[in-house]
Amino acid sequence: MQSATSLIEVRYAETDQMGVVHHSHYPVYFEQGRTEYFQQFLQPYQEFEAQGLFAPVLSYQVELKGRLTYGDTLTLRTKPSHFKGLRVVMSYRGFNSDTLVVEGTSTHALAGPNLAPLHPRNLPPCYQFLKEKLENAL
Amino acid sequence: MQSATSLIEVRYAETDQMGVVHHSHYPVYFEQGRTEYFQQFLQPYQEFEAQGLFAPVLSYQVELKGRLTYGDTLTLRTKPSHFKGLRVVMSYRGFNSDTLVVEGTSTHALAGPNLAPLHPRNLPPCYQFLKEKLENAL
Amino acid sequence: MQSATSLIEVRYAETDQMGVVHHSHYPVYFEQGRTEYFQQFLQPYQEFEAQGLFAPVLSYQVELKGRLTYGDTLTLRTKPSHFKGLRVVMSYRGFNSDTLVVEGTSTHALAGPNLAPLHPRNLPPCYQFLKEKLENAL
Amino acid sequence: MQSATSLIEVRYAETDQMGVVHHSHYPVYFEQGRTEYFQQFLQPYQEFEAQGLFAPVLSYQVELKGRLTYGDTLTLRTKPSHFKGLRVVMSYRGFNSDTLVVEGTSTHALAGPNLAPLHPRNLPPCYQFLKEKLENAL
Repeated sequence: MQSATSLIEVRYAETDQMGVVHHSHYPVYFEQGRTEYFQQFLQPYQEFEAQGLFAPVLSYQVELKGRLTYGDTLTLRTKPSHFKGLRVVMSYRGFNSDTLVVEGTSTHALAGPNLAPLHPRNLPPCYQFLKEKLENAL
Repeated sequence: MQSATSLIEVRYAETDQMGVVHHSHYPVYFEQGRTEYFQQFLQPYQEFEAQGLFAPVLSYQVELKGRLTYGDTLTLRTKPSHFKGLRVVMSYRGFNSDTLVVEGTSTHALAGPNLAPLHPRNLPPCYQFLKEKLENAL
Repeated sequence: MQSATSLIEVRYAETDQMGVVHHSHYPVYFEQGRTEYFQQFLQPYQEFEAQGLFAPVLSYQVELKGRLTYGDTLTLRTKPSHFKGLRVVMSYRGFNSDTLVVEGTSTHALAGPNLAPLHPRNLPPCYQFLKEKLENAL
Repeated sequence: MQSATSLIEVRYAETDQMGVVHHSHYPVYFEQGRTEYFQQFLQPYQEFEAQGLFAPVLSYQVELKGRLTYGDTLTLRTKPSHFKGLRVVMSYRGFNSDTLVVEGTSTHALAGPNLAPLHPRNLPPCYQFLKEKLENAL
């Protein structure tokens, strides 16, 4: 399956007093990976929102396999790993040069404006587009 | 003039690899100071937004006089320092125990929903309330 | 088992364009919960670091059960849920008034300065203190 | 005078409930601009730190001329605007396409490890390198 690749330069502000990237920045990197995946393989995420489809995070997990610091560039590979109904799971693997430094997943609900639940009879037209693209990708 | 006092415990995530609070967190502390000022002397800021009055930041400045680190508590004093028409300036002084560590100001525009400009003939009712409170405070 | 309780006021800066707290802030709230737990039941975390014992995050997970927005106060309950050797797991449950809005865990390695691995024969004296406290708590 | 250009894609996490980039992220963008300037015209900033020269922020100001939102790319131009002794001022202008959206400056002290003051008789060798480069640039 195809994944999107993002190159993310670590920002000084993202380090903490241990001298490494603070763990809370990884979900932000993952989000940047999703932005890239949507842009490359679906359509820009903001267009889904403009068309009434939102994908808020329900849960996520981050597993640190190494450390990043200022001066490093994270190579992040992002792809969908599960899709069913109104639930999407995205997966992430991040490398510093060739060394795996982080893995994770995020689970998203598909929802309407103001995060209102969507009902099967009342899905925005772009839902069908997303469904086909994700089913083909998986 | 009266100021609101906020006690803000430095978060580990707010430190950087120099071992001190990264400078980009001070405007977030200032915002927490404004939240406190509004709550104590005006009305909660979210009620202004709910009534159609927004106060986005136009500009701000931060002057570091010392350093904060994890384990420190910032004592932040917040007050308005200027108000005219649709422009408000707030001022901040922050202390670590008795030592001044930061000073700053933020300038805000008063605006409508979606940050639309307000016109003098079409101000939300809470504008008058804000005006009187701020003029009395200054 | 006893948990530490933190009251955390949501900051405006922590909301995103969906109008709710961005999911990446929950690990920062959890960290604030750990700070409180250490302070109340162990010793301030910075003292462990000063004594040569660090607890970097190895992995974590966040499960959103509801949403928080500006004006809300998160009541976060933090406690250890597992301890063995050089591995500690902490657990978090967060409430908005009485409604559960977030659950999560974080797994920590115990390490030395510069995140160097610790060897059983060469543990800093505060390790024994931590071990006893955590074993009693569990 | 030459400036470094950074292209910075706005992250979803950087928006707030007003639907625009929260003002506290601009100093982080500026820092990314400095990283680029150092890399292109001086040497990577982390090498200065490795050689014992640190440039902590003393003060900064941010002036918003427009708004950025998710999906926008900030084109940031960064250059030094003042240098004397142990003080450096950097200047920033940020554009969304051709529209100016932000201006600012940051003032830095040159300091030693642990932010210790530097004394004229005891400057790290890379200070001279920095001095020559900045004086030529200005």
